[in-house]
Amino acid sequence: MAKPQRVIVVGGVAAGMSAASQVRRRRPQAAVTVLERGDHISYGACGMPYNIEDPARPIEDLVVLSVDEARSKRGIDLRLRHEVTEIDLAAGTVTAVDRAAGGERREPFDALVIATGARALRLPLPGFELPGVHVLRDLGDGAALKAALERGPRRAVVIGAGYIGMEMAHVLTARGLAVTVLERLPQLLPGWDPESVARVDEVLGAHGVERRTGVTVEAAEPGPDGRVAAVVTDAGRFEAELVLVAAGVRPNAELAAAAGLRIGDSGAIWVNQSQQASHEAVWAAGDCAEAYHRVLRRNAWVPLGTTANKQGRIAGANITGAAERFRGIVGTAGFVVFELEVARSGIGEEEARREGFDPVSVTIRQRSRAHGYPGGSPVQVRLVADRETGLLLGGEIVGREGAALRANILAAGLAAHMTVSDIQGLDLAYAPPFAPVWDPVLVAANQLAKEVAAP
Amino acid sequence: MAKPQRVIVVGGVAAGMSAASQVRRRRPQAAVTVLERGDHISYGACGMPYNIEDPARPIEDLVVLSVDEARSKRGIDLRLRHEVTEIDLAAGTVTAVDRAAGGERREPFDALVIATGARALRLPLPGFELPGVHVLRDLGDGAALKAALERGPRRAVVIGAGYIGMEMAHVLTARGLAVTVLERLPQLLPGWDPESVARVDEVLGAHGVERRTGVTVEAAEPGPDGRVAAVVTDAGRFEAELVLVAAGVRPNAELAAAAGLRIGDSGAIWVNQSQQASHEAVWAAGDCAEAYHRVLRRNAWVPLGTTANKQGRIAGANITGAAERFRGIVGTAGFVVFELEVARSGIGEEEARREGFDPVSVTIRQRSRAHGYPGGSPVQVRLVADRETGLLLGGEIVGREGAALRANILAAGLAAHMTVSDIQGLDLAYAPPFAPVWDPVLVAANQLAKEVAAP
Repeated sequence: MAKPQRVIVVGGVAAGMSAASQVRRRRPQAAVTVLERGDHISYGACGMPYNIEDPARPIEDLVVLSVDEARSKRGIDLRLRHEVTEIDLAAGTVTAVDRAAGGERREPFDALVIATGARALRLPLPGFELPGVHVLRDLGDGAALKAALERGPRRAVVIGAGYIGMEMAHVLTARGLAVTVLERLPQLLPGWDPESVARVDEVLGAHGVERRTGVTVEAAEPGPDGRVAAVVTDAGRFEAELVLVAAGVRPNAELAAAAGLRIGDSGAIWVNQSQQASHEAVWAAGDCAEAYHRVLRRNAWVPLGTTANKQGRIAGANITGAAERFRGIVGTAGFVVFELEVARSGIGEEEARREGFDPVSVTIRQRSRAHGYPGGSPVQVRLVADRETGLLLGGEIVGREGAALRANILAAGLAAHMTVSDIQGLDLAYAPPFAPVWDPVLVAANQLAKEVAAP
Repeated sequence: MAKPQRVIVVGGVAAGMSAASQVRRRRPQAAVTVLERGDHISYGACGMPYNIEDPARPIEDLVVLSVDEARSKRGIDLRLRHEVTEIDLAAGTVTAVDRAAGGERREPFDALVIATGARALRLPLPGFELPGVHVLRDLGDGAALKAALERGPRRAVVIGAGYIGMEMAHVLTARGLAVTVLERLPQLLPGWDPESVARVDEVLGAHGVERRTGVTVEAAEPGPDGRVAAVVTDAGRFEAELVLVAAGVRPNAELAAAAGLRIGDSGAIWVNQSQQASHEAVWAAGDCAEAYHRVLRRNAWVPLGTTANKQGRIAGANITGAAERFRGIVGTAGFVVFELEVARSGIGEEEARREGFDPVSVTIRQRSRAHGYPGGSPVQVRLVADRETGLLLGGEIVGREGAALRANILAAGLAAHMTVSDIQGLDLAYAPPFAPVWDPVLVAANQLAKEVAAP
């Protein structure tokens, strides 16, 4: 492929701006245009819950690279409020509508990066268009939620008990609201180990968060002021002046699908490990794209900011002629809810079973610091491995301190396809203020080794 | 080899008690005798500095398993104040002197575990036998130092700026003493990267610790009360009512050497990865023994509590017929000095050069938390890799929070012989309260990738 000179990037948040910056850095003579349909670029969306916790911090604090910097320092032709409506692969053009000034233009490209992200699911139920019903996906959502909190709502309902739901239950409680979390499935954090969930549930309860699982939401109801006043479910009516729908996200893959690009089984854009889509001039990265999963050994869709940044960087490098490979995800994710750090890597026991493994697991609790050292707290570690081969499949870590960073041990182990015995043999850092002589991860591995045929 | 019924363990601290307990757990009918020359068993020696920091905590808090528990619950024939003076491999006996009751006895063994530990270097210089001069190695040393602090010394000199020296500079300062650290070599923490050392040096200085490097100690001088009053060096005289010699340790390998067992180049007892010494009925574990080093790909001597526990466990298991292998160390170590966590894994740049690698390195600073998230602090990461192959050789991490646990990422990477590119590709946990979207370890790897031929 000739080295492209005209690069168009659709979407200017994490993946898109990483790709655009990487192209410019490696090939300063390339013309790089970023078409972003929103008003903001390059922000840390994952930081929104934590930003919302602090009324004094403007949401714009989350912007990593300003529009001016992107234009002047990085030399990127950055167009806000430009929505791409069509990709013509045969012609090598995109059609973009200027939502501010009006008008539409076709732009030719030698290389195209699709970084259109994902969108929050909205509930197609009566009343969910009412003022006071929010989602939290882009910076505008965050600003709107923050403004809504200034109105002084007293009660909130959070619909969905995934990462965002858990973080926001904490944040809204910290902002002084009485919070109820409603989850359709039978447990909080669907897909997580019940023992990890029990620990999270306990902490939510201790902070006064009401948790209702197995509840189907039916409608939102307005109050006399026309704003949302309650959520109606099959388990009763929950009053709230603020409702957050945190029921999941979907990849923005329609534009790619309409262009004839391959869509994976996950519904996200199929890519190879070069981040190339099914056309040699098209790359995709971030939440709209699949990612190679090193435990599943195939593509999966796990939209996260870290992956978006890495994939964008690799797409950008490869467009300029590099031969970088996205090494893949292992399913690492983490969040903080009240005083608990919660993190996982790999796949859970149920998912392992669905994938054809014969999983065994243990859950242990061990203090975060050495025997006799004051101030430690229990760290709960769950590990899952394949019975026959001893291969580590995943783990979950929950605790007050050091839990999330310990999940990185598992992330590295999964990347290297370590067995339980390999984990047992790790030479981990030890000093009484930050770890016991047998780190909780090693204690769990020692336990699990007894359950596998080939440790 | 027939399954041994009479197991003798020489030394009852970490490695010895791990081995003894493991034998009893796996083969309850085995007769296990532990001969410990001191008064204590099974204590966390690494916790001593942190225990000494708190005058209210008895040093015995560090004991993990009491003598009674070892005897009654684990069924171990535990003999304190029994010093083994000879091992006769041909006869299959040890000779032990009962230092309390007097008398000596020969005891037959089918399997022998040597877990004699290491000893603190004492300086063969005038005055170093004075009261007020201490080392910190066994629980008795800790008790003596703690008692000495009760006398209200105002000034301390710490000789040696390794891990113990650094920890004790912090602890003695916290106990209200004015502390001077004297180091013979030109820098604190010999063998560490100067940029890591600079950060530690800065923190010591901020807490009022005087640091003098390149100083040769010549003598200790008594005061009018006959206790130590000063340390005399080629750079002047340093007054101190308390002197701690933290000038290193040596393996207690003489007993093994006298029995004709192979001693490694390091001066410690040679072992294979089954923890077997050079005689099929003899195992060695802990600070008296070498350990297979996975980066150097040969035995080395890096005495640490974590290794002692693992090696003891494996020796015990193998004595009962298991076929466990000690996977090896990678040189992980960590400590806390004032508000800094300091940790390393692998080998440093100088050591890499001596070992025949062509090392390249980077040092970066990155915040511990996400962009815009309050309360983070800089984490300094140094990585060293081989230029030609891109193989990760080691790293050092220094920071206020999360530094030590991040070294575990390197420990896992080194165990798996990862390259810089492998590290770049790790799917690490990210959430604003505990990590930026590019973890400091990934930022360092991205930088270092530019320096290696085959990233």
